[in-house]
Amino acid sequence: MHPETRFDNYFKSAFTVDSVIFGFDEGALKILLIRRSEAPFDDYWALPGYFVRQDEDLDEAAQRTLRETTGLENVYLEQLQTFGSPGRHDFGRVITVAYYSLVKIADFTPRADGLSRDVRWHDLSALPDLAFDHNEIVGTATEKLKRSIRTRPVGFELLPPEFTLTDLQHLYEAIWETRLEKRNFRKKILSMQLLVDLERMQEGVAHRPARLYRFDEQRYQELTQEGFNFELREGKSR
Amino acid sequence: MHPETRFDNYFKSAFTVDSVIFGFDEGALKILLIRRSEAPFDDYWALPGYFVRQDEDLDEAAQRTLRETTGLENVYLEQLQTFGSPGRHDFGRVITVAYYSLVKIADFTPRADGLSRDVRWHDLSALPDLAFDHNEIVGTATEKLKRSIRTRPVGFELLPPEFTLTDLQHLYEAIWETRLEKRNFRKKILSMQLLVDLERMQEGVAHRPARLYRFDEQRYQELTQEGFNFELREGKSR
Repeated sequence: MHPETRFDNYFKSAFTVDSVIFGFDEGALKILLIRRSEAPFDDYWALPGYFVRQDEDLDEAAQRTLRETTGLENVYLEQLQTFGSPGRHDFGRVITVAYYSLVKIADFTPRADGLSRDVRWHDLSALPDLAFDHNEIVGTATEKLKRSIRTRPVGFELLPPEFTLTDLQHLYEAIWETRLEKRNFRKKILSMQLLVDLERMQEGVAHRPARLYRFDEQRYQELTQEGFNFELREGKSR
Repeated sequence: MHPETRFDNYFKSAFTVDSVIFGFDEGALKILLIRRSEAPFDDYWALPGYFVRQDEDLDEAAQRTLRETTGLENVYLEQLQTFGSPGRHDFGRVITVAYYSLVKIADFTPRADGLSRDVRWHDLSALPDLAFDHNEIVGTATEKLKRSIRTRPVGFELLPPEFTLTDLQHLYEAIWETRLEKRNFRKKILSMQLLVDLERMQEGVAHRPARLYRFDEQRYQELTQEGFNFELREGKSR
């Protein structure tokens, strides 16, 4: 396509897309990983992703490769960052455009396919050695999530539709990897007028039932747009 | 390098880096543009940038291409987003990793070189038709800047070391493309304890001299880390 051979040397690269999919379950932050079925890093755990086709948009490639490796469809993916160290791929120069998303684990049933031997949620706190620079990509995504919940609400994407204040506190604690002071957390969260009290209690739990809440969707969108400062630093234990 | 021909078709792409350099002068937000000296888009204004070499890291390529097209060195560049529509480049599949930065205009003397016929600061509010999808990239960078100053301080990178409250207000007004109510703005800014009163007035100005301030660098870094909510929406005229 290009008329001059002096550009030829630039047209020898490839690019991939990789997705960091966060979920939250049993009080722990999790990431969806696939076990690779081809070289390089055959049999390693890795982020869902693959090469981008010549005629394919990046966002479209992220959706397709996520579907083809995990079965997940229609996930809201946002670009995280592009990683492109010269030595990061054994086959040549390959840069990867990383995406990330927060999802409700219960909404999806991941399944492996030809490009993945296995697909599974892994605790973020106990990740194996991942293929390529994928541990670094997960680290970047996690830092971004940690920072973002200081000025934006979180939970709508990760919690079930009805949840307790303890569920929400556990989510913040899992992301910040810390313990928060209960009274302080509740006071702050309730003052934001983000939650709707469902005026019902949990059912079928072994402990004393707690009050159920849902997010006020309009207020949630407003706070996502406007931002706020979630001043809980003083309540942190480290 | 890769052992199997089925991957050959992926290794036919190129990538570039492009930088959105914001500056602020005479009350207006500006962007540094180069006039291209080769096809495609010969003679068009464009963002500073070029092809990434095979053995070069992305951040390194961003620094090099900025230097080689504008003469600017040691600029703090942050990744913005990667743009990769299949049809965006005439020579084949080329994705671009966009970077952005805020700089003090007075700190640099841009100069054109072999890859650029000219280099000049342009008012953001009156940009020409740029090469490739560069208008879209500038739009994305501008939106990000607008959002970020709602939860992070701005000005340290764009204003001279000593400035007046009016200078700072003009910066916010230029970024938000709106007028702010003076009393409200001052009250809010001063309450953040971000500014150090130099206890001196401007000299050699035609109007009544105003008080000079500088940023408290430590407080600036704290607020950049922690975030805040800059509640001035009610003061906006649109």
